[in-house]
Amino acid sequence: MSDDLVVVDRQGPVVRITMDRPQRRNALSLEMLRALTAAMRDAGESDATGVVLAGNGPAFSAGHDMAAMAGASLPEMRELLWTCTELMELIQAIPQVVLARVHGVATAAGCQLVATADLAVAARSARFAAPGGKGGWFCTTPMVAIGRNVGRKQAAEMALTGDEIDADTALAWGLVNRVVPDDELDAAVDELLARATRGSAASRAIGKRALHTQLGMDQRSAYAYAVEVMAAASQLEDAREGMASFVEKRPPEWRHR
Amino acid sequence: MSDDLVVVDRQGPVVRITMDRPQRRNALSLEMLRALTAAMRDAGESDATGVVLAGNGPAFSAGHDMAAMAGASLPEMRELLWTCTELMELIQAIPQVVLARVHGVATAAGCQLVATADLAVAARSARFAAPGGKGGWFCTTPMVAIGRNVGRKQAAEMALTGDEIDADTALAWGLVNRVVPDDELDAAVDELLARATRGSAASRAIGKRALHTQLGMDQRSAYAYAVEVMAAASQLEDAREGMASFVEKRPPEWRHR
Amino acid sequence: MSDDLVVVDRQGPVVRITMDRPQRRNALSLEMLRALTAAMRDAGESDATGVVLAGNGPAFSAGHDMAAMAGASLPEMRELLWTCTELMELIQAIPQVVLARVHGVATAAGCQLVATADLAVAARSARFAAPGGKGGWFCTTPMVAIGRNVGRKQAAEMALTGDEIDADTALAWGLVNRVVPDDELDAAVDELLARATRGSAASRAIGKRALHTQLGMDQRSAYAYAVEVMAAASQLEDAREGMASFVEKRPPEWRHR
Repeated sequence: MSDDLVVVDRQGPVVRITMDRPQRRNALSLEMLRALTAAMRDAGESDATGVVLAGNGPAFSAGHDMAAMAGASLPEMRELLWTCTELMELIQAIPQVVLARVHGVATAAGCQLVATADLAVAARSARFAAPGGKGGWFCTTPMVAIGRNVGRKQAAEMALTGDEIDADTALAWGLVNRVVPDDELDAAVDELLARATRGSAASRAIGKRALHTQLGMDQRSAYAYAVEVMAAASQLEDAREGMASFVEKRPPEWRHR
Repeated sequence: MSDDLVVVDRQGPVVRITMDRPQRRNALSLEMLRALTAAMRDAGESDATGVVLAGNGPAFSAGHDMAAMAGASLPEMRELLWTCTELMELIQAIPQVVLARVHGVATAAGCQLVATADLAVAARSARFAAPGGKGGWFCTTPMVAIGRNVGRKQAAEMALTGDEIDADTALAWGLVNRVVPDDELDAAVDELLARATRGSAASRAIGKRALHTQLGMDQRSAYAYAVEVMAAASQLEDAREGMASFVEKRPPEWRHR
Repeated sequence: MSDDLVVVDRQGPVVRITMDRPQRRNALSLEMLRALTAAMRDAGESDATGVVLAGNGPAFSAGHDMAAMAGASLPEMRELLWTCTELMELIQAIPQVVLARVHGVATAAGCQLVATADLAVAARSARFAAPGGKGGWFCTTPMVAIGRNVGRKQAAEMALTGDEIDADTALAWGLVNRVVPDDELDAAVDELLARATRGSAASRAIGKRALHTQLGMDQRSAYAYAVEVMAAASQLEDAREGMASFVEKRPPEWRHR
């Protein structure tokens, strides 16, 4: 099942997960969400250090599949949205750095994928929207992620108008890390992901998850949690190696992924 | 009572609530806060889709009324601040999109109104401040709203210096959505509000309130809440109509406001 | 002990606390953290209104002391990180406005000091980083503070790449309030701190602490807390003086620090 909807390939330390339903603009049907979840879980259990999430065809992803959803019951809708939410939480929980490679449109849950990824690089021609606000079904769950990337007024504008913003606006508002000319997109993705995956993989796996977790806590709880995580992480072999190599002025050798 | 302090008029789908105490620079006395609350509650119960909050005279609003407050007791101060807070929460709870139309100065609780509104459009000559920090009474409650629009360092700068920032700075920091030449203010207000009120009113009423609510939660709680809200909203007649019209490639017809 | 590592001098209403271990780039060893905590506590108990936190030598601070930490046990690491955390919380709790004067590099816990200070002014040549992500020990606790200054995607980029950002990027992302030519750094520090310490010190002490506290709460709790703080503060002699002087159009006279 997964094979039809998602193409997975491994290039060195990087897993590329590519949504491959171009004629549906990579709509996030229940089957597509399950295929992405399976691919992301496999990547998470692999020894890769980075994941690129991309889309084939004219769009990154146009969000949920209106054709498939029309007439769905409440239990069906809950299953769809919980499956989508679990994918979002998985992306932030796996040890790898997940980078969204965005071209074309990223709308609704497609824009939520961009907001959820650790990092995002966009082609200059890319556009972003949470269009439910100008339709009949407000983008409530996408705004959980989008509203944790951009400011509150900007989040309200996206949600209420439903209009597209261009890539430079997305950069200015904090939704993506880089905007590059369209023909430099893959090079920029590779460059940023390489820089984001240099250190100890064991250390980064702990740190990435803790980063997303503590950002949702009040500051005092965040510190209580972060101190324990960081103190425990100091006992990793890789942490000792990092400090020793720094003191000894030699390159570190990481033992664990 | 309300009539003296606030002018309410309806223009098509939009209610305009205009503070009208120009000689006091629309100071937010207890009476003004009650008049605004009554007007906002009426608007919320109407079939309007948008609310413009504006001020007559040289200022949008100069905040609390120092003359009225001098010498007030603790119970009187608590009543004033709770009335003010309930107005702020009401603005984010009513079904309509509330847009602040800002000219002149918006200071202290006046700036809080701008920060609280769903959207804000400012004239280029507008200025914004939380001036209590350079006086004797720190702007603690205004900073609840302002600090949820702008970054932490910028919030601290506004609160501690008490100095005005200009409209372009407010835009860069995230406090407003648009800055336009003074003589284009009304046109820009109308244009943005029209775009922000196009879809199903029933759907948007649920979505707007959920947006403000989930932004204050940790991410996991926000998703648990947002999934249930969005799944339930999928069963609205307007949601079904939106999906059906999309699939059938025809304009939607919204049934409910 | 404190004297060796930290230089404290008082200039009018301002306490300058200067890290003075230039040959170690002001590394935040347990001893340095304790010296800073003692100096910050003394400043907090003084009648000063502002604190400038600075560093002697080529760097503001390079963060924790790798040489001292290599091989430290879990209890030792927990003590180090809790001491560091308590310093951060102290900076936000003392009555004075704390301004970080940043030159050279501010990395890891050094960058956390900048993010924690109420205000920060940087020389144009300053650089900022959370380098643990490219090493063996992820900057989990520094990201608690840094992630509450900058957006989520920008925080993830700093944490994962570990690379330095320059001062203008730090300004654009919200980590500092001002960037100035290197030779104007002290003048800019003095200017901003003077503007941030003009009003009643008694009022500001309450307001500053409440600002940091409420920003970590959900909005409804934040308002419940802020209303009570601000209502109580209205009963200060300085609050009454501020309102009376405003109404009487005369300069206020603050009685309490």
